[in-house]
Amino acid sequence: MKQSFFIALAVLLFNTVNAQKLKSPNQKLQMEFSLQNDGTPSYSLNYKDKVVIKPSKLGLYLKNDAKYLVNDFTIIDTKMTAFDETWKPVWGEVASIRNNYNELAVTLNQKGTDRQIIIRFRLFNDGLGFRYEFPSQKNLVYFTIKEERTQFAMTGNHTVFWIPGDYDTQEYDYTSSRLSEIRNLNEKSRTENVSQTAFSPTGVQTSLMMKTDEGLYINLHEAALINYACMHLNLDDKNMIFESWLTPNTNGDKGNMQAPCQSPWRTIIVSDDAREILASKMTLNLNEPCKIEDTSWIKPVKYVGVWWEMITGKSSWSFTNEFPAVQLGVTDFAKAKPNGTHGATTANVKKYIDFAAENGFGAVLVEGWNEGWEDWFGHSKDYVFDFVTPYPDFDVKGIHEYAKSKDIKMIMHHETSGAIRNYERHIDKAYQFMKDNGYDAVKSGYVGNIVPQGDNHYSQWTVNHYQYAIEKAAEYKIMVNAHEAVRPTGICRTYPNLIGNEAARGTEYQAFGGSKPNHVTVLPFTRLIGGPMDYTPGIFEMDISKINPNNHSHVNSTLANQLALYVTMYSPLQMAADLPENYNRFADAFQFIKDVAIDWEDSKYLEAEPGQYVTVARKAKGTNNWFIGNVNGYKARASNIKFDFLEKGKKYEATIYADAKDAKDANYKTNPQAYTIRKITVNNKSTLSQVSVSGGGYAISIIERK
Amino acid sequence: MKQSFFIALAVLLFNTVNAQKLKSPNQKLQMEFSLQNDGTPSYSLNYKDKVVIKPSKLGLYLKNDAKYLVNDFTIIDTKMTAFDETWKPVWGEVASIRNNYNELAVTLNQKGTDRQIIIRFRLFNDGLGFRYEFPSQKNLVYFTIKEERTQFAMTGNHTVFWIPGDYDTQEYDYTSSRLSEIRNLNEKSRTENVSQTAFSPTGVQTSLMMKTDEGLYINLHEAALINYACMHLNLDDKNMIFESWLTPNTNGDKGNMQAPCQSPWRTIIVSDDAREILASKMTLNLNEPCKIEDTSWIKPVKYVGVWWEMITGKSSWSFTNEFPAVQLGVTDFAKAKPNGTHGATTANVKKYIDFAAENGFGAVLVEGWNEGWEDWFGHSKDYVFDFVTPYPDFDVKGIHEYAKSKDIKMIMHHETSGAIRNYERHIDKAYQFMKDNGYDAVKSGYVGNIVPQGDNHYSQWTVNHYQYAIEKAAEYKIMVNAHEAVRPTGICRTYPNLIGNEAARGTEYQAFGGSKPNHVTVLPFTRLIGGPMDYTPGIFEMDISKINPNNHSHVNSTLANQLALYVTMYSPLQMAADLPENYNRFADAFQFIKDVAIDWEDSKYLEAEPGQYVTVARKAKGTNNWFIGNVNGYKARASNIKFDFLEKGKKYEATIYADAKDAKDANYKTNPQAYTIRKITVNNKSTLSQVSVSGGGYAISIIERK
Repeated sequence: MKQSFFIALAVLLFNTVNAQKLKSPNQKLQMEFSLQNDGTPSYSLNYKDKVVIKPSKLGLYLKNDAKYLVNDFTIIDTKMTAFDETWKPVWGEVASIRNNYNELAVTLNQKGTDRQIIIRFRLFNDGLGFRYEFPSQKNLVYFTIKEERTQFAMTGNHTVFWIPGDYDTQEYDYTSSRLSEIRNLNEKSRTENVSQTAFSPTGVQTSLMMKTDEGLYINLHEAALINYACMHLNLDDKNMIFESWLTPNTNGDKGNMQAPCQSPWRTIIVSDDAREILASKMTLNLNEPCKIEDTSWIKPVKYVGVWWEMITGKSSWSFTNEFPAVQLGVTDFAKAKPNGTHGATTANVKKYIDFAAENGFGAVLVEGWNEGWEDWFGHSKDYVFDFVTPYPDFDVKGIHEYAKSKDIKMIMHHETSGAIRNYERHIDKAYQFMKDNGYDAVKSGYVGNIVPQGDNHYSQWTVNHYQYAIEKAAEYKIMVNAHEAVRPTGICRTYPNLIGNEAARGTEYQAFGGSKPNHVTVLPFTRLIGGPMDYTPGIFEMDISKINPNNHSHVNSTLANQLALYVTMYSPLQMAADLPENYNRFADAFQFIKDVAIDWEDSKYLEAEPGQYVTVARKAKGTNNWFIGNVNGYKARASNIKFDFLEKGKKYEATIYADAKDAKDANYKTNPQAYTIRKITVNNKSTLSQVSVSGGGYAISIIERK
Repeated sequence: MKQSFFIALAVLLFNTVNAQKLKSPNQKLQMEFSLQNDGTPSYSLNYKDKVVIKPSKLGLYLKNDAKYLVNDFTIIDTKMTAFDETWKPVWGEVASIRNNYNELAVTLNQKGTDRQIIIRFRLFNDGLGFRYEFPSQKNLVYFTIKEERTQFAMTGNHTVFWIPGDYDTQEYDYTSSRLSEIRNLNEKSRTENVSQTAFSPTGVQTSLMMKTDEGLYINLHEAALINYACMHLNLDDKNMIFESWLTPNTNGDKGNMQAPCQSPWRTIIVSDDAREILASKMTLNLNEPCKIEDTSWIKPVKYVGVWWEMITGKSSWSFTNEFPAVQLGVTDFAKAKPNGTHGATTANVKKYIDFAAENGFGAVLVEGWNEGWEDWFGHSKDYVFDFVTPYPDFDVKGIHEYAKSKDIKMIMHHETSGAIRNYERHIDKAYQFMKDNGYDAVKSGYVGNIVPQGDNHYSQWTVNHYQYAIEKAAEYKIMVNAHEAVRPTGICRTYPNLIGNEAARGTEYQAFGGSKPNHVTVLPFTRLIGGPMDYTPGIFEMDISKINPNNHSHVNSTLANQLALYVTMYSPLQMAADLPENYNRFADAFQFIKDVAIDWEDSKYLEAEPGQYVTVARKAKGTNNWFIGNVNGYKARASNIKFDFLEKGKKYEATIYADAKDAKDANYKTNPQAYTIRKITVNNKSTLSQVSVSGGGYAISIIERK
């Protein structure tokens, strides 16, 4: 008996020594870390005692390293800590965020090489984050990552909402399928893009949204992507195991590291309530606190712009059609014959400034203001823009003064065409030009292949560039809205001057052939997990041929859905993207866009199902007013919500903008502009049942009755 | 008869139409351009009616272009012009340079594609230069070069002085062989280097020096390498045809072009007198005139420096041995334990400043002054230096003031470790730091592989970077001496602030195992054709173990040879590289280094044979004084020269520093420091016969007797 007792004890001790358990503050999530027999680090995750992630391997393959960092580890230290703090973001869906987790830091030593890594786990009530850390040490100083080996072993053939893995773009419509179907649907899902690079028929991007047949929602993403390659996921569809697949640098290496350093956090958000996925603040919580001391210059803004007219093809970014190519500083635009379609003219811009001022907007974005648009992409041109030289018909100072006189800010545009060395060479002068001419915010773009050629949009090298631009912008007190850059991963907590990204298929694609009508019911579960999206909604004219007879695209959304986006597609930066004349045609509906707030005290996700519907209520900061948005997918649906988030004892006037449901039903395809507006009084006991059509939705402004 | 007459006339016309002849101003060189039957452009070159270059093909292979630009051309225009001007360089071997050539510009149109190129030939008395030009046109705007197809068909199996083709380094000893032997000797010639990339067993670098069995000297190089990939030569050793082999960018492409644009000039310097090869100014003449308006701040300088003590291993660049790696801005050097071997300390630098002031030098270079040297190369580190943060023991301001008080300039050092994006990110602050702290000149370095990894030192992308650094330096009125950068191609005419390059195996290799004793008799024929070399001569202690007992290198040169280098290795920037104590040991010989001028009114090459000897006399600008240098190769030799370059009727005192020739013969290996000094009076009728030993030489200062 004694012998078996000691054996059992030894086994227990062994398990205790080699297996570490961690629970979330509310105990619903449980994580277990252990070493497999060959010293491979492994973790698993349970939610309410159900397996979410089966035991999954961790580690990294290093270049020029026979041993790698994948096995032969022993645990030499474990530290468990608890953390509970509340912090205030500069802007956000909420004014106050609780950061509460239990942490396990496991120090592993590799036999034979005497190398150490730390794997740090943070278990929140909403999910798990973990990362690799490489402490300062003798035997691991400089190393190159060949591939990261982080697995996420799924318990079954879940439903998944995905876009195909790609080193250069995320501008795909989402596909909803089973995990097992990714392989066959991958190629078809890869619609054309000016810069795209596939790597695997079962590769997908993050954040990845899944739903199990048992009704569990699982989201995979990363947080704090800094000085590291962006992670995709590659599915072993025999075993249903996702494995990390990093974006390579030009030479194929996946990361140049110098200890001490760390990987980003790999995140798994879990809930049996889809609304909690959307409400999760884990991505932000895993990022470093704000590094900017004085944030008073960082302000959300609602804007219009000279943009949609070029996207639809009505106008051009370029000034002239006279040259096959231009050379900055050599080509004399003053002598060139204007093409007559240039959008960014002083006169046209002033119209937008007038419109913005009349309608309470804060700023006007202008694209195509600067020399270089005649041959701006598709040629991997190096010296493509200088970011400071306007076309002859764009009066920088005159426009600045006119805007200033109307209390309007101009938003700068820096299209880089992917030529990142060129951008870095000019960036100080470009940022200083902004300050000298009254611009506080810049929309940057990375359209086309990265130059130097061969690099990828999401490699460590290029990710490093985006970060450089953001940090330098902070030095100049400039806000950045980066398009075509890497998907955000919560870095806006640390650098809140990063007020937006695109990094997904935005509204422009509605003019490039259209997006799926349920696209906006997926994006909050995928793209927006990492940060706000400059989705640029507010399209009132769905038939693009009315704007440009040669463009037969159709915007696959009802007008009410477009209004709802100002609430459902969270962003501190919101554009009313359509042409002023289209807003003037539907002034009553436009009223919602004028009224909706852009910075929030609180947000309540009322209803949510990926691919089907999202309904959220948000309280405008510094007021008692609320705004509700509902976006609906393919199937018409009655949304049922309670107003119990309203303050007891107060009355509010709710204005409901909804799809028309009568003889002439709204229909995103055939009758998108059919909407109704009605006003009712509500209080915190009120409820609402509102039908949204296919591709439809509704928007509600709830103003406190004083 | 009539029929044959017309046929003959037609043939004549056809030849006249498709073949273009060009002669040099003195008619000794004759070039013929023609189209082969399939429309392939071809040229040939004769010298004094002897074939130098057999008919050789021209053209370019373009990427993603089935047609290429190699054949199917017709001549649609030819223009012949003559040019004859004299211009004054800011500094140089001579004060006035004649630019005299006959030019032929042939415009070719490609059938089927309707694309045009211009090939422009300039035939000087010293050789031929030609380049491709791509005019602005509809059918050729953006194009990528897959490979240039420029051939140089040799007439025989010439003797050639070469280093192996390499995308990343030129720091090889020269091999002298027949063309046919390159293949077998190529691998062996590739001694180890921290950054090297071979591409072909018959690849060689330029400038390439050849001598035919008939005694004709032929030099191949390029001029005005701007925004293009550096050209190597690959030998078809069956047919003895060299063909251009460009350095690729990271993705393998060999050039991204946008018309209108041009290639660099491909140059062929020809003479039956080796001295005329050295005297040729063709490379400079093919470059654009000076683009800097005010050049008053550009000044030749003689300097000493804290450098050789690190190269020999006596001191270290680094400050501490405490860390396996450092992170700039994080690592606290103030708390680090000094390693006690740091060369760049305030105290040590002041010693060099004192030495410089006492001996009439203009400046002191200091390497290892700034944070980052602990792990500065071999790791492809990105943020390796910030170029502005000194170590705790280097007092920037204190040193500047001390130097200023002694009328000494400090020379800045920017080692980039090949991390060119990092350098560009910091370059404005780095250059401004220089101006703020009294530095006018910078030695830059590119040791190690280029970062971003995968790129090459001589690619278009990296060549573009060096040019960026030079042009930006000119904006700051800063002179640049770039080491490990691309070989110069005469750009110092356009940007005379480029006062030096290394781009070859310099004196440092004498401490890394030694160079061939005839190395310095080859370099003027190869490396120096493109521009001056910062060879950093003046080593008086040949036994390096006397400086660092662990380093058993031997400097393969006599002391007299080292003195001669100040004359034979032209540079506006001359270092007395050895440690002051070694100069103090041989103060009488050191006097020559103190006396020798660094900017010249005129230069006369008296004797020259590649690999064997170079003897040159130079007149110091603004004086009537001359300096002569002779460097000798393997075989001891009596140099016989006339002083007929001296002004008639004047007397001069000549001080001759020569290898000792007595019972204890100088010998570069066993008795390098045996030298004699004698003074004689000379005039323009004098002659001299002076024996130089193996690896030896002599130096003469000729001072006008007033």
